[in-house]
Amino acid sequence: MGPVAQTTARRANREAILGVDPGSLTTGWGLVELEGNQLRHIANGIIAASAALGQADRLHQIHCGIENVIKQYRPGAVSLEKVFFSHNAQSALKLGQARGMAMLAAAQNQIAVSEYSATEIKVAVVGYGHASKEQIQKMVSALLGLRGALRADAADALAAAICHVHRRAYQARIAVSRAVKANWRDYPKIVLKR
Amino acid sequence: MGPVAQTTARRANREAILGVDPGSLTTGWGLVELEGNQLRHIANGIIAASAALGQADRLHQIHCGIENVIKQYRPGAVSLEKVFFSHNAQSALKLGQARGMAMLAAAQNQIAVSEYSATEIKVAVVGYGHASKEQIQKMVSALLGLRGALRADAADALAAAICHVHRRAYQARIAVSRAVKANWRDYPKIVLKR
Repeated sequence: MGPVAQTTARRANREAILGVDPGSLTTGWGLVELEGNQLRHIANGIIAASAALGQADRLHQIHCGIENVIKQYRPGAVSLEKVFFSHNAQSALKLGQARGMAMLAAAQNQIAVSEYSATEIKVAVVGYGHASKEQIQKMVSALLGLRGALRADAADALAAAICHVHRRAYQARIAVSRAVKANWRDYPKIVLKR
Repeated sequence: MGPVAQTTARRANREAILGVDPGSLTTGWGLVELEGNQLRHIANGIIAASAALGQADRLHQIHCGIENVIKQYRPGAVSLEKVFFSHNAQSALKLGQARGMAMLAAAQNQIAVSEYSATEIKVAVVGYGHASKEQIQKMVSALLGLRGALRADAADALAAAICHVHRRAYQARIAVSRAVKANWRDYPKIVLKR
């Protein structure tokens, strides 16, 4: 497993979200949580597979790396970027193999996996669906108050995690607003029933 | 794990080769060994992932299925078909995810993975690089003396295993022939040194 770039002390009773950006050589990972309305950074890093090894052993390294992160931080959900396009079948196949390691490690630990399109992630982080890699890197650092360099792979992983936090918070607000409306509609009936 | 279609009693001191034909829903597997010059069938079957489950849980089922086969038969090598082309990025990605499960299970059990192109496998089994699926199915059944229906996924897995056995036997013969030639070249020197 690669070095952990930055770790922030974590409080209890918060659900950490693990974002993963899989790759056959470098897999980025990052954990965030929501504290009130505030996003908090927990940790991020990369898993660097040895280029000298064969594909199967590299996948084993990636799986072990993600397993270690899950065991250490016990995330409540795993978030991944959906993949629609690829340069060619070979790169899609290799990406799939690495991606499978993240999905397997999540399933083995009974953690639900959510997938978001690149556009959804960019909108959640930068507010703009065509944001560049550099814009995502800068915005992730700014949102999480990170100082110092942030690896692009780790930034992409944190961005996927942030997207999941936003989506969940949005769905929670929708559920509350629906519940409020439902109560308001029920009110006259309750009155009439008296 | 899916049902084991056919199992043949196995003798000691032989190295079983596990062929795997991964798929996001159905993964075929088959084990063969070489007894003298004779190919022997050990077992074959399929791992059927539940279509009702999410991708991550299906991958978990595939990984568990391959793990079970490895634990039960302790193969000495794993053989897979190389993938060069795909209909689209999505299918290559899903195939990669399933394929990663076979590679990971092999690496976790310190078993080397060999990959062969579809043409190499067809030539090894049918003697013809453009053989059809049905020809492979029939030829695998004939080579291994199997009676009854053989699933296409299991046949493809057995074909990959047979290709590895052939390749290994061929390499062993080359090594012997090289050793013989080397001795023959050394002979005059030995004579002159007396």
